[in-house]
Amino acid sequence: MEKVREIVREGKRLAKEDPRRVVHSFKVGLVLALVSSFYYYQPLYDSFGVNAMWAVMTVVVVFEFSVGATIGKGFNRVAATLFAGALGIGAHHLASMSGATGEPILLAIFVFVQAALSTFVRFVPRVKARYDYSLLIFILTFALISVSGFREEQVLMLTHKRISTVIIGGLSCVLISIFVCPVWAGQDLHSLLASNLEKLSFFLLDFGDKYCEAVGNDDTKEVDKRKKDFDNYKSVLNSKSNEESLANFAKWEPGHGQFRFRHPWKQYLALGELIRQCAYRIHALNSYLNTDDTKVPVEIKNKLREPLKRMSLESGKAMKEMSMSLKKMTKPSSCDLHVQNARSACKSLTNLLNSGILKEVEPLELISLLTAISLLIDIINLTEKILESLHELASAAKFKDKTERPLSFEKTNAKSIVCGRPIKCHDDHVVTIIEDDGNNDDTSKNDNRSNEVTNHEKREDSNTHVHVKCLCDVVECR
Amino acid sequence: MEKVREIVREGKRLAKEDPRRVVHSFKVGLVLALVSSFYYYQPLYDSFGVNAMWAVMTVVVVFEFSVGATIGKGFNRVAATLFAGALGIGAHHLASMSGATGEPILLAIFVFVQAALSTFVRFVPRVKARYDYSLLIFILTFALISVSGFREEQVLMLTHKRISTVIIGGLSCVLISIFVCPVWAGQDLHSLLASNLEKLSFFLLDFGDKYCEAVGNDDTKEVDKRKKDFDNYKSVLNSKSNEESLANFAKWEPGHGQFRFRHPWKQYLALGELIRQCAYRIHALNSYLNTDDTKVPVEIKNKLREPLKRMSLESGKAMKEMSMSLKKMTKPSSCDLHVQNARSACKSLTNLLNSGILKEVEPLELISLLTAISLLIDIINLTEKILESLHELASAAKFKDKTERPLSFEKTNAKSIVCGRPIKCHDDHVVTIIEDDGNNDDTSKNDNRSNEVTNHEKREDSNTHVHVKCLCDVVECR
Repeated sequence: MEKVREIVREGKRLAKEDPRRVVHSFKVGLVLALVSSFYYYQPLYDSFGVNAMWAVMTVVVVFEFSVGATIGKGFNRVAATLFAGALGIGAHHLASMSGATGEPILLAIFVFVQAALSTFVRFVPRVKARYDYSLLIFILTFALISVSGFREEQVLMLTHKRISTVIIGGLSCVLISIFVCPVWAGQDLHSLLASNLEKLSFFLLDFGDKYCEAVGNDDTKEVDKRKKDFDNYKSVLNSKSNEESLANFAKWEPGHGQFRFRHPWKQYLALGELIRQCAYRIHALNSYLNTDDTKVPVEIKNKLREPLKRMSLESGKAMKEMSMSLKKMTKPSSCDLHVQNARSACKSLTNLLNSGILKEVEPLELISLLTAISLLIDIINLTEKILESLHELASAAKFKDKTERPLSFEKTNAKSIVCGRPIKCHDDHVVTIIEDDGNNDDTSKNDNRSNEVTNHEKREDSNTHVHVKCLCDVVECR
Repeated sequence: MEKVREIVREGKRLAKEDPRRVVHSFKVGLVLALVSSFYYYQPLYDSFGVNAMWAVMTVVVVFEFSVGATIGKGFNRVAATLFAGALGIGAHHLASMSGATGEPILLAIFVFVQAALSTFVRFVPRVKARYDYSLLIFILTFALISVSGFREEQVLMLTHKRISTVIIGGLSCVLISIFVCPVWAGQDLHSLLASNLEKLSFFLLDFGDKYCEAVGNDDTKEVDKRKKDFDNYKSVLNSKSNEESLANFAKWEPGHGQFRFRHPWKQYLALGELIRQCAYRIHALNSYLNTDDTKVPVEIKNKLREPLKRMSLESGKAMKEMSMSLKKMTKPSSCDLHVQNARSACKSLTNLLNSGILKEVEPLELISLLTAISLLIDIINLTEKILESLHELASAAKFKDKTERPLSFEKTNAKSIVCGRPIKCHDDHVVTIIEDDGNNDDTSKNDNRSNEVTNHEKREDSNTHVHVKCLCDVVECR
């Protein structure tokens, strides 16, 4: 009894998590009951006979959760059936010319060769990714048609009936999946990336506070909350296969909502990969949050608090904006500003570090602090790359322009005053270069550095550590 | 013509990469030709008729690459067919009692309810992982039997024939896959983990040399080699889904070679996860190898070279040994010694760092060095955890004992002399505690610390940074 209640509870949870699951189940039941009517109505049964069961089979196998998956599978099935049907008839014709003793032997050889060859082709990675199901159906249909043709003499009739019923089954699935509460894989992929960005932004917006205030904080509630945060990244870390299959399905879908037929789904995969790379860094950063690092002296932490907080806060804001702009399909506008703010905070931090406040600290005590800083710098670099990738997506997918708001002087919490100055960049978005007026006298040198920072945008090799370069520049400037 | 040649080349590459693919393709062709004989031989055809095609279908759908996958799918198919067959007959009987008008309506309702319910159950993650195919076949068979029963009156006969042919098809697949050049998923999983460990060991054995000598080395050949190393981890990083499906298949397999029927496959997943965690760290470390870190002064690097090299070398040796012991299925014996050597090297390093050699270095210039050290310490901790997990696997899977070789004084390249002293630990493996006689006078204090180190083995929370604790101990001892 307890077990039954548990099962019901699990079912309710699944339905609540995504109500489209319930709708999908009803749709499958509906189509199946509909297609079964082939058997009920005498006229239909008379023309298709026992072959009507192929329609039932097609429905059960082809009807998938999303429109794209259903169309893809339906297309694979119909195309493979047609092709294998034609080949099967040819094989049958060829075999029948070789006489009564030769026929079964020749047919067996055909089946063997075709099955072995197709099975081997299924190992080719590119084929496996998109046409695995096609090949399965190809082997199946060829074997059935060429071999059963050996008995029933009306091979052509049989093939015709089988293909018609498969098409009928496939079409009903596709039509119902498109017109009754459709589930679009493309829309799902789009939302998935936006929500992944949002998850990262939540962490970054909170990180600064937590890191600086978490000294020796053993509150269990706090720890629980952090654990929950932690679990959020896990979903981003493992989202690769999900993204890939959604992108694969989305390619089959017709235009829907804001998405055209040839929406640049491939670009979503590139963006998703960068988001995941950033999530790896955040994963590592989170482990330093949970570390028992009372060893970093509080006064040092206090001195570094301001720029540290600003670094994570600004990159978090940029992520949040990007998530919003992706959701609304508008071009990201003020993200560049946030990224540059984060960069200037990073500069203040390095200036602080260079001012010698760490002189009296043991190097060992610095390990966790410096590693956290190094990770944060990495995250800012990746944020910039994500932004770049989003810009590419925005221009490829023709995102709407937001109503331009004037670039204003942005005042942050930091002491240094930053001013925005727009310059034209390689594609049609505006990059704002920040000049940190607070700390520098030599404007020309400073300008050079700013250009360096802009150049980072064009870098593509994700393995080199850009931040080291960036830090070195700062060191040289001093 | 060029295209054809390219395809042939790709085919050759695939066949060379794993010749079992060719064998598998032949096997599928063979079974399919064999099962087609149902149609050729008059007596068999007379008893099964057109239902013989279910055998062909079963073969095409069920025959997978590994024995475990084939058995699993065959079992799923047969069980679902049996169960759905019984239910279908019941539904047909119930509907036929309700008269000529009620029958089709009742049947449609049955099909609808069953299809909707089963489709919903397929969303349950645990069911989806293992029984997704069962449910698909269940929906299919139930619909076909209950509905086609409406026409042909001999439902029982139909069901009987269908189930027999499915069993015949499934059995031929299983028998051929077991007795003709079998591909065991369990063996594959076992080899995969051993080779993953080996890949990590290759990196670690080389890392010390490369890191310390790579100052300003821009040799393109060298860079290419490193890139290749880098690609090796990629395969470890993304091996999760592969491991999971192999473990899933392996559960279905009968005992084979050195593996019993209930081999602890679950433990392999735990071990694989730890190896992957270690690969993440190595991935990060590799990026520091490629960094343009000429900023770390050469004299500092020279001073730290010895312990740094020894840390990576010893953990690499431990990995190599573990890989060998997994391959040969013997209990790991001298790995503990290597891990403890790595720990003692780590101690020497921290002593060096504490001696103040970094006082005159700018903190910014230390970032990459300290992060690399922090990652190496992490890797050593993970090596220890992997070893622990391997010990668990060894006792669960009853690995053979290696012929005990006497614990000898091991001379490493370092100046400190270490001696091994075996103590009994929680389970039946021997842990060797190393005493670093070179640097310490206070033996009792040293003993305490050694115990601390052993205690790390029992830690399970992988998120806390054990190395911080370890480092702090060293600092306190001074």
